[in-house]
Amino acid sequence: MNATKPVSLNLNVRGLEQSATLAIKATCRRLREEGRTVYDFGLGQSPFPVPVRVVEALRLAAMEKDYLPVKGLPALREAVAEFHRAKDQVEAHPDRVIVGPGSKELMFLLQLVFYGEILVATPCWVSYQPQARIIGRTVKLVPTDFARQWKITPQQLHQTIETTRDDYRPRLVVLNYPANPSGMSYSADELKEIAEVARRYQCLVLSDEIYGQLHHTGEHVSIGRFYPEGTIISSGLSKWCGAGGWRLGTFVLPPDLEWLLDAMAAVASESYTSVSTPIQYAAVRAFRGGVIMERYLWHVRRILSTLARQCTHLLKQAGIRVHPPTGAIYLFLDFSPFADALSERGINNGTALCDRLLAETGVAILPGVAFARPARELTARLSYIDFDGARALAASENIPLDQELTEDFASQWCGHVLEGVRRIAAWIGGSAG
Amino acid sequence: MNATKPVSLNLNVRGLEQSATLAIKATCRRLREEGRTVYDFGLGQSPFPVPVRVVEALRLAAMEKDYLPVKGLPALREAVAEFHRAKDQVEAHPDRVIVGPGSKELMFLLQLVFYGEILVATPCWVSYQPQARIIGRTVKLVPTDFARQWKITPQQLHQTIETTRDDYRPRLVVLNYPANPSGMSYSADELKEIAEVARRYQCLVLSDEIYGQLHHTGEHVSIGRFYPEGTIISSGLSKWCGAGGWRLGTFVLPPDLEWLLDAMAAVASESYTSVSTPIQYAAVRAFRGGVIMERYLWHVRRILSTLARQCTHLLKQAGIRVHPPTGAIYLFLDFSPFADALSERGINNGTALCDRLLAETGVAILPGVAFARPARELTARLSYIDFDGARALAASENIPLDQELTEDFASQWCGHVLEGVRRIAAWIGGSAG
Repeated sequence: MNATKPVSLNLNVRGLEQSATLAIKATCRRLREEGRTVYDFGLGQSPFPVPVRVVEALRLAAMEKDYLPVKGLPALREAVAEFHRAKDQVEAHPDRVIVGPGSKELMFLLQLVFYGEILVATPCWVSYQPQARIIGRTVKLVPTDFARQWKITPQQLHQTIETTRDDYRPRLVVLNYPANPSGMSYSADELKEIAEVARRYQCLVLSDEIYGQLHHTGEHVSIGRFYPEGTIISSGLSKWCGAGGWRLGTFVLPPDLEWLLDAMAAVASESYTSVSTPIQYAAVRAFRGGVIMERYLWHVRRILSTLARQCTHLLKQAGIRVHPPTGAIYLFLDFSPFADALSERGINNGTALCDRLLAETGVAILPGVAFARPARELTARLSYIDFDGARALAASENIPLDQELTEDFASQWCGHVLEGVRRIAAWIGGSAG
Repeated sequence: MNATKPVSLNLNVRGLEQSATLAIKATCRRLREEGRTVYDFGLGQSPFPVPVRVVEALRLAAMEKDYLPVKGLPALREAVAEFHRAKDQVEAHPDRVIVGPGSKELMFLLQLVFYGEILVATPCWVSYQPQARIIGRTVKLVPTDFARQWKITPQQLHQTIETTRDDYRPRLVVLNYPANPSGMSYSADELKEIAEVARRYQCLVLSDEIYGQLHHTGEHVSIGRFYPEGTIISSGLSKWCGAGGWRLGTFVLPPDLEWLLDAMAAVASESYTSVSTPIQYAAVRAFRGGVIMERYLWHVRRILSTLARQCTHLLKQAGIRVHPPTGAIYLFLDFSPFADALSERGINNGTALCDRLLAETGVAILPGVAFARPARELTARLSYIDFDGARALAASENIPLDQELTEDFASQWCGHVLEGVRRIAAWIGGSAG
């Protein structure tokens, strides 16, 4: 008898590969083991350590082992609600908070339980579309462009909805700002206008604000202020608290969406059950914030914005199109001015560009196609995070917060990132020349 | 404008409620807050603390914050493979281990990616069937009975498969032993025969051995020994390590099922990403085991078996049908001898029985219908776990392991459980009288 089991897989998952951001991490690890110098600008992980107070809170909670309520530890849901009330000036009630093992998992649950169309502006985060595919939903992609800072406009949203000729079709509009992969964000005025369109068609808005506290000037505004009745705010510990590996994300829902919250909680109770108990206790400390957390965040923002400014400068100087970012930890590069020169080197799409760049310089960036851009497009995401965040943070703490950090600071503490960026510039210069 | 969003839910999740075991926990909490004395025999949580060494390991790993590989920390996957090689005498390779946020989540992923029929003997764990419903699969339930100790026989499995007249239909047979909710387990001979049937029809076997280390005499045998090419062994920290709230489960797959493992990992990378990093580091210590872990397990087993014996005795004396358990933390009670008397009190099904029992005595048990038994059946699961496991463990440590624990020990350290069981006996005695 042949012991090999015949393959019998759900068609939705056949050919599905691991998330591109996680795959690039594995590739970089392999290259490093081979002794190569790697500039790992692929994964979107905060380079900063989890704040000491939050680590302490985890140590104190290490013996906690009870199953917690599906929606989360009551004290944590209270802290999350208060966090959004204080930071975003939105009504947020603990009863309408749900805590999950990462906001990615909560988005997966949301897509699973909500029966409707999903609208996403591209470039977008790597997982929205694969999640929809696994569940068997279709996603309507709304392409943006460099000129509009990779942001969806109210007119575009309006037009996209109008083309379907189904005004009250259930729709979920996904917004992500500060954005992965572009680093761009929306102003209050832009959000107000988008809110008006969403209200007119009764769209739900999933407002992915995981980088909200990494707005480089601390001026993040949530669309929840302008569209409270239809906005789900997504956040978590991964980015602003440096705790990506801890796996804790949060959703806050408006009062009228309790049917959606209950359905998510029901599926959660049949899948992950609840988020790891010690992690939830520690997260209370993070969400409660306070002066020490705020100081941490200001240092983090100052380092990221200084580094981003220098990276942007070097890339623009080399002729690569890129916007100075508003927040987050990414730059979205457009190599289209080099299309002809790259083509002569046999590079005709973003994937080939990234593969060759990695092979020839050791710099790992992810092609636009991973962010739902057309495969042929010569775009890529650069995460400027390959430096020792703990050392940079300690160095920044010696410099009063009312001062700007110098170029020297970035060279000294984030030199590996700048070196990688210079390698991109030199490599593309070879194309241009 | 009406701000209420129209409900638009996936039909598979409409009407889905939170898992029955989690719901009963909330009910008990509410009753306690009202000042009632509650005997919480509903939830299936280990009463014992996480072993001190494992808690220490979590403290040491509290600052770990990187995303880990989707399938898990390599050192943990090595420890899990070694655990199964040593405990179960099966070939288990780290490359074929996947770690998830609870084995429940891994089962959810398995059901999502595997396209085939699922066969489950009832009574069964509460979540197999709701998971299938969420995903849109059908589950074929195979009813067992008291006389056969609530276990599926090889003949039954054979007949169930034969009735479909589709020999090589992709099938997943779920076995769970020591069993939730019955406390029964399979002998090596029984497993051998089941393995033969599974092999004949190339069924996959999901062997849910989460209670394996809670076999009361430490004599757990895995079907993986007899059907290595088709068995997925499921385990985790929740039960034998007392760390249910930590959320860490494990699967070990055979070599020929790498297509299934890869599909699970791909979906994991688009949903929960990876298990919480500090928890994974701590779990290495748990799975590596050693003398201290073994001693903990022997004390736990001795306490559970002593208590189970006394509970069984009291319940049988009252006329309730119940088998002395082989492992785990449950008794599955059959009140059918009292059907007429209960009917006179207006109780005609298991749910009514449990509701009335809770209202009239404060004892919370879960009706058979939660475990996929017929709604009218007068069965229920009792978790004999409502005692202070830390105190009981400390007391047991004063008594050499080669001695049996006395009735006095159980009365002294698990008295609340025995009192609740006596209340059931008195309550049903009222029916009989």
